[in-house]
Amino acid sequence: MKVACLLANGFEDNEFRKPYDALREAGHDVVIVGLESGEKLDGYKGIEKGVTVDKSFAQVSPDEFDALLLPGGHSPDRLRAQQPAVDFVRAFFEADKPVAAICHGPQLFLTADTFKGHRMTAWKTIQGDLRLAGADVVDQDVVVDRNLVTSRHPSDIPAFIRETLQLLQVPSRA
Amino acid sequence: MKVACLLANGFEDNEFRKPYDALREAGHDVVIVGLESGEKLDGYKGIEKGVTVDKSFAQVSPDEFDALLLPGGHSPDRLRAQQPAVDFVRAFFEADKPVAAICHGPQLFLTADTFKGHRMTAWKTIQGDLRLAGADVVDQDVVVDRNLVTSRHPSDIPAFIRETLQLLQVPSRA
Repeated sequence: MKVACLLANGFEDNEFRKPYDALREAGHDVVIVGLESGEKLDGYKGIEKGVTVDKSFAQVSPDEFDALLLPGGHSPDRLRAQQPAVDFVRAFFEADKPVAAICHGPQLFLTADTFKGHRMTAWKTIQGDLRLAGADVVDQDVVVDRNLVTSRHPSDIPAFIRETLQLLQVPSRA
Repeated sequence: MKVACLLANGFEDNEFRKPYDALREAGHDVVIVGLESGEKLDGYKGIEKGVTVDKSFAQVSPDEFDALLLPGGHSPDRLRAQQPAVDFVRAFFEADKPVAAICHGPQLFLTADTFKGHRMTAWKTIQGDLRLAGADVVDQDVVVDRNLVTSRHPSDIPAFIRETLQLLQVPSRA
């Protein structure tokens, strides 16, 4: 499957790298979509440096992709300040395509108004924001609700990858 | 007046430095309160380095302070993940003491459940979170509602400082 991984500066290093590598090793085509094509991005923990944005939002359409991957850290709040990123995320929910988001990733769901209709989890502070907005939030390592996979923080990465890979194998269950 | 400035790593450099200096120059005693006493904090833009936490939350009580200053950046989301910081913020609202928050600062109001009862503004993405939670949000450079002063982003700093200094001169209007 062709997967869009949305990324901006200050992403959480492992929440990008580990799912990105796992999806590629499973044979998926993962494209890093960001605010500016060719931009070099760093993780905020200093482990990942110079990750290149493959395509800007202006260069791609959600229709080209089968699934969406949203790493955490400071990246989601940067992305959701830009309308093209918000519209891009919303399109995957409207098309019932698989979406996998970890940590601060679900901040994008608040801005894109896609936080209702699925049970989910997120980073602890974002769980609170989601609850206040009326979302159905639980506090567990991974939550799978139809086409949406969510996790809370870096130590949930193994469960997050496991369930994301499984969802991408069976996209029709969305 | 004695002012608690809550700070964690990754604060927005100018949103800390400029109000902090302005309040001190006006004769206020500003104490940097953080998660660990003596911790050295950096701004995320690399301008401010090694700002020392004067006191931890365990070492102080909100009762010791007359007012609260909340710079933005990544600092507020880090702070609100810790219950002592959340309780500290709530105490200033419960006592109707002056509170000044800029940019991501109002994220603390969501977690502390102090986002209702005052008109406010915030960084654009946080404005959205506040609206979804039911807060009364406007998009302007500075909003003063009784004891609360809020602003959106670094270019609002002059208006933020002006109104914060004025509020601290007339605390009784809270």
